Amino acid sequence: MKWFQEKLYGHHKQMLSMSAVLYHWRTEFQDVLIFENPVFGKVLVLDGIVQLTERDNHIYHEMIAHVPLMAHGSARDVLIIGGGDGGTLKEVLKHPVDRATLVEIDGEVIDLSRRFLPDVSGGAFDDPRTTVLVMDGTRYIAETATQFDVIVIDSTDPLGPGEKLFTPAFYRACRSRLRPGGVIAVQSGAPFFQPMELDQVCGRLAASFAGVRPYLAPVPTYAGGMLALVAAGASNDVLRPPCKVLRERFGALDGKTRYYTPEVHRAAFTLAPSLAPSPLREGLRPVDSLETVI
Amino acid sequence: MKWFQEKLYGHHKQMLSMSAVLYHWRTEFQDVLIFENPVFGKVLVLDGIVQLTERDNHIYHEMIAHVPLMAHGSARDVLIIGGGDGGTLKEVLKHPVDRATLVEIDGEVIDLSRRFLPDVSGGAFDDPRTTVLVMDGTRYIAETATQFDVIVIDSTDPLGPGEKLFTPAFYRACRSRLRPGGVIAVQSGAPFFQPMELDQVCGRLAASFAGVRPYLAPVPTYAGGMLALVAAGASNDVLRPPCKVLRERFGALDGKTRYYTPEVHRAAFTLAPSLAPSPLREGLRPVDSLETVI
Repeated sequence: MKWFQEKLYGHHKQMLSMSAVLYHWRTEFQDVLIFENPVFGKVLVLDGIVQLTERDNHIYHEMIAHVPLMAHGSARDVLIIGGGDGGTLKEVLKHPVDRATLVEIDGEVIDLSRRFLPDVSGGAFDDPRTTVLVMDGTRYIAETATQFDVIVIDSTDPLGPGEKLFTPAFYRACRSRLRPGGVIAVQSGAPFFQPMELDQVCGRLAASFAGVRPYLAPVPTYAGGMLALVAAGASNDVLRPPCKVLRERFGALDGKTRYYTPEVHRAAFTLAPSLAPSPLREGLRPVDSLETVI
Repeated sequence: MKWFQEKLYGHHKQMLSMSAVLYHWRTEFQDVLIFENPVFGKVLVLDGIVQLTERDNHIYHEMIAHVPLMAHGSARDVLIIGGGDGGTLKEVLKHPVDRATLVEIDGEVIDLSRRFLPDVSGGAFDDPRTTVLVMDGTRYIAETATQFDVIVIDSTDPLGPGEKLFTPAFYRACRSRLRPGGVIAVQSGAPFFQPMELDQVCGRLAASFAGVRPYLAPVPTYAGGMLALVAAGASNDVLRPPCKVLRERFGALDGKTRYYTPEVHRAAFTLAPSLAPSPLREGLRPVDSLETVI
């Protein structure tokens, strides 16, 4: 039995058995490995870090897509930066949106995902509402005149090609491309291992958005117990609407979810004190941002 | 660098570096390894499976102790079966209880935990309210005449010495030792890797308790994203009181928590459809058990 060994963190590793290596090569931007694991199905690895598995990618994709879209409630134009595997795109298209634009820097990731992991995108790349652009997301944001209702930053970790997608300037540029009422969601690492990353992302988003709230998704193949995502918009309240409102919006979805529900949406924003970003830990925000979330 | 390699599941392993091995020997019941890891601090391993680390044990111990105690609201007598490390005992004693009885089959685990991991119990073994019995928990339950308000089954997984603590007969015996209004909490494995274990535990508890509800705790060193615990009592509602009630009870606690809050209590019971035990997945219970949890 061959084993893939992930070394994302010092002093902790996870290993996944490889029953078959389907692809291993370098694109212009990164090392791509795709293998089969008997429990997780096909696994996509970029630069040695697990990006997704067939078995549990729905948790991540549903939470990064449905939370901002359901918080918005009537998005027509959605932008995805990154997300070349198409999983976020598939979830976005369950909403009655007019257009979904996906901007991925590495076109080979799209091609390889469609070839080896077709169920992750599930035909989303062929949807007539989809536009795919292979280019640097920061350049796209700087140059486009299009306005969006929801922007999803479906990036790798802030190392390698994903690094530019975590800067204050990029968040500011995203803000300027959002229509009034617009919502953004970004991935922000595992707060247990990378508490500073969540702090930084929240702080940088707060420079451009009045409402910034982290939320959690438990993705088994991401070591560390919990992945943090961050939603931002016009106020804290819009990001976590009442259950009644979410249920009405949820009824309009075309296609089922396996992880996301209105109740999960609301519960995901409840962070324990020891996992919350430091501005929340230190009480610099109004007490109710933590105390009255449920 | 030496590495400890956990092989709890086929096709997935986690590894923790060992900067120092503090203890490695066999007790009458199991293999005990205690080592130091630069990120997790001291790590306690029984029969090759990580039981706790200094860094994240509070998440597990707070959730298995405070959820049943806060659901009860006025517990005077608490029984802990297992839990030889003393972490659950420490959390229980933050409540104004009269007596806490800990029944652990392996006395050496108590001695080794007190010697090598003193902060986990934090003096709880010396509390005048504490009684420690080194004996088989099933025998204790069968023979004792004492009645309890809360019972916590802080066991290892259902293999080896912990196996007898997962049977319907044992749950029935626990039920008979509870006063009216009594609440029980049990650990139930990682539902992502072991969905059948959660199904079984819920089903077996349902034979003795009218209210049975799983809840989740994200413990980073337990691979699989989420650990499932199960609370059981006189009704589903008593296990998840309104936030207002929980906040009043929380105010009476002597000692801080780092993970548990009233809001976390309520959110932890919100299971995604794909993680819920199969009776819930299949809609065999009233819709509101899942739909109205928030």
